[in-house]
Amino acid sequence: MTAPVKLLPVTHDIADFVRDSQWSKLPTAVRAEAVRAFLNWVGVALGGASTPTVDTAVQGLSSFAPPGTSVVLGRPERFDAATAAMINCISSSAHVFDDTHLKSMTHPTGPIAATALAVAQRLKEQGRVVSGADLLHALVIGYEVECRISNAIIVEGAGASLGWYVTGVSGGIGAAAAAGRLLDLNHERLVYALGIAATQACGLRATHGSMAITFVPGVAARNGVTAAYLGGAGFTCGDISIDGLNGLLQLMSPNADVGYIRRGLGTEFELLNNAYKPYPCGIVIHPTIDACLQITRMDGYDADQIEHVDLLVDPDAMNLCWRKLPTNVLDAQVSVYHWAAAALMHKRAGLEEGELACVMEPAVRAVQQKTIAVVDPKMARDQGKATVRMKNGRVFEVNVEHAVGSIANPMTDAQLAEKFLGLAGRALSAERSRQLLSLCVNLGSAEEATEVARLAT
Amino acid sequence: MTAPVKLLPVTHDIADFVRDSQWSKLPTAVRAEAVRAFLNWVGVALGGASTPTVDTAVQGLSSFAPPGTSVVLGRPERFDAATAAMINCISSSAHVFDDTHLKSMTHPTGPIAATALAVAQRLKEQGRVVSGADLLHALVIGYEVECRISNAIIVEGAGASLGWYVTGVSGGIGAAAAAGRLLDLNHERLVYALGIAATQACGLRATHGSMAITFVPGVAARNGVTAAYLGGAGFTCGDISIDGLNGLLQLMSPNADVGYIRRGLGTEFELLNNAYKPYPCGIVIHPTIDACLQITRMDGYDADQIEHVDLLVDPDAMNLCWRKLPTNVLDAQVSVYHWAAAALMHKRAGLEEGELACVMEPAVRAVQQKTIAVVDPKMARDQGKATVRMKNGRVFEVNVEHAVGSIANPMTDAQLAEKFLGLAGRALSAERSRQLLSLCVNLGSAEEATEVARLAT
Repeated sequence: MTAPVKLLPVTHDIADFVRDSQWSKLPTAVRAEAVRAFLNWVGVALGGASTPTVDTAVQGLSSFAPPGTSVVLGRPERFDAATAAMINCISSSAHVFDDTHLKSMTHPTGPIAATALAVAQRLKEQGRVVSGADLLHALVIGYEVECRISNAIIVEGAGASLGWYVTGVSGGIGAAAAAGRLLDLNHERLVYALGIAATQACGLRATHGSMAITFVPGVAARNGVTAAYLGGAGFTCGDISIDGLNGLLQLMSPNADVGYIRRGLGTEFELLNNAYKPYPCGIVIHPTIDACLQITRMDGYDADQIEHVDLLVDPDAMNLCWRKLPTNVLDAQVSVYHWAAAALMHKRAGLEEGELACVMEPAVRAVQQKTIAVVDPKMARDQGKATVRMKNGRVFEVNVEHAVGSIANPMTDAQLAEKFLGLAGRALSAERSRQLLSLCVNLGSAEEATEVARLAT
Repeated sequence: MTAPVKLLPVTHDIADFVRDSQWSKLPTAVRAEAVRAFLNWVGVALGGASTPTVDTAVQGLSSFAPPGTSVVLGRPERFDAATAAMINCISSSAHVFDDTHLKSMTHPTGPIAATALAVAQRLKEQGRVVSGADLLHALVIGYEVECRISNAIIVEGAGASLGWYVTGVSGGIGAAAAAGRLLDLNHERLVYALGIAATQACGLRATHGSMAITFVPGVAARNGVTAAYLGGAGFTCGDISIDGLNGLLQLMSPNADVGYIRRGLGTEFELLNNAYKPYPCGIVIHPTIDACLQITRMDGYDADQIEHVDLLVDPDAMNLCWRKLPTNVLDAQVSVYHWAAAALMHKRAGLEEGELACVMEPAVRAVQQKTIAVVDPKMARDQGKATVRMKNGRVFEVNVEHAVGSIANPMTDAQLAEKFLGLAGRALSAERSRQLLSLCVNLGSAEEATEVARLAT
């Protein structure tokens, strides 16, 4: 029998990973997924940039934060790095159209990408150029830190309440790790930065159904910038912030398992479990949308003849997306009833189906009313079933094993590019959107990551 | 039997209180306590302004936050309102010498005073003068909101872990309430601001023993400013953020009791339960210091003859201040052993006894080593006992029922003024310190609250 190994707190393992990781040694699939995650993020940030949510956030933050030099994607304003990161992450969350680490229900890329892009711009002002590969590498590092902490807290058995909006809890720590790598912090200061981020971990799912649903990821981005620069200046924080006495894991859940952070760190990649949303709504609604869209393409389907709709959904779909007859777009984003109805009536589920005109359209409203959702505790998060009974007695039924965008049924590069152009086109000209897409696709060989910020305005 | 009343979420009660409260109708004792709380805060903020903790925070935050117009007390730098509020609250926490709501272990005034002062300056720039009474009133409002939320989460029976650093959890919400009153937000926007603050609630006691112990209150101040201005701009947040589904209370503890927020709101005042620290260290150490200081004044006491020291302490003293042989000033702030030793050897317990020279002094170190602390589960937080056995066999023993500074044994106005002058003198001339003290004592009749910021630099 070997003696038990006495482990240092996990912030040291994370700091080692942040410092030791090498872009060139990452598996090809990981590097490719980093490109997809970043490209998807730039698209959703541009697509959300002129929503009322972001307009209001900019107005509120401008009331006290002076102008700075960091770019707000798709908008003319400039702020300090932390505020710009916050707004860009609010933008990328505004249509709830971003990405999801399904295992832990984290929306991972927003906080880390927004933070990394803001820090890259700050570095450039100080004469240090961050390459495209550096930025993507920071993204991989941040992603692993963020999602592994999410796993430790929230995956099955770890036991923290899903009411914690886990993107806010782990996102700032991942963002601090990404920023810490870009800033080339030493081990000690990375430990500080990780702790300073951990002590800001926060986020309530009670924000769902209001603009504040986007604020939580935004907070994580701001916190990541703040933590990295404070830690980098030598503002000390103990190394026990994540897995020690009165640290994050202990407070979130008695069953939190730090092993989820350590096991395979640097050799196995959570980024390969990233899911991209094809529809702008809560991801647990997506299997239902897939099922409903498939039904609309069946022979003999007639939207006007719907008598009743039965949904079978996984438990989290009802935990998070239970709103029955939403009266605004933010409630509608997290209403399984609305999206079933919209998909069945409009035969698509894009940004237009999320707008108030569709949410309140009498025909859609009628189907929202006629829809009943029942939880199947055995269902996975990418699983769902819809049964539509028509007035003439016909029944259409579709069982979705893996929703589009899930790990087993991923969006293709072409689908992601199409999604990007649709979203970027809301803020940029078609030509500029294509230029930016091309830059993002080839970011791994771009000399300056901050070109993204320049093109995206 | 009357039918059960269906209550709206508690954010509505809080918003009503924030809007309806009137300074002139507050009990005289409450208004007087507001003056004491604010005066104590200005003192500790000035006293902490040039510590390494604040120097480092300013350096880190300056790396990305551009200069602004809000004053940092006792320093030349100026930042935006949120950053200035954060730094001022870091300053006021730097010596852990601030105030405490003993029932909930909140350090209440820092976040709300720092936020209110920053917002008052911002308003003045926009042509709206905040009077001294307005500022004090905002402080009372913020205090009640903050400490009542702390009670709901953390007092006996509510059951949240004391590992949550409750000042960070509730402080931002109190600060948002105070700022919301100064900004004259309507009911709806107050509800938004409270929710935006609640979703940023955070703070780990794992930060204790490092600079980050001061960062948590600072975060609360920053969050309060951010929440008030975002809510004020109409950035929406649902009203269920505190006591609803997936709201703060539910996530913090299954036994959290919203009744602690509602009962007596506007008629009974937690501010009357505020304790001011006579010693710059964790408040649960104070009964021990009192006992040791009393022993040093006894006939026949000779510090050089100490053979052994036994402490009997309340459970939280060991939960939070268990560090045995601290090797830096931040660990020493939360070491009951160090302060027992320092008080017994130096016969006082001021800022000098918190410095590294005293912490590492061989004679003090020897007594730290000779001291044993035992928990008495029946002891209250302001209770403690010290027994000192001398080499000649004599035994000195003191039992403290209520530590100096506790509710039952409060610091007098004269003691608070002396504390203020000692602290302010670290940043300002003696004359300016006296001027500022006089302004603070008479703040209720001062035309402009922002005079405090002007004099405190």
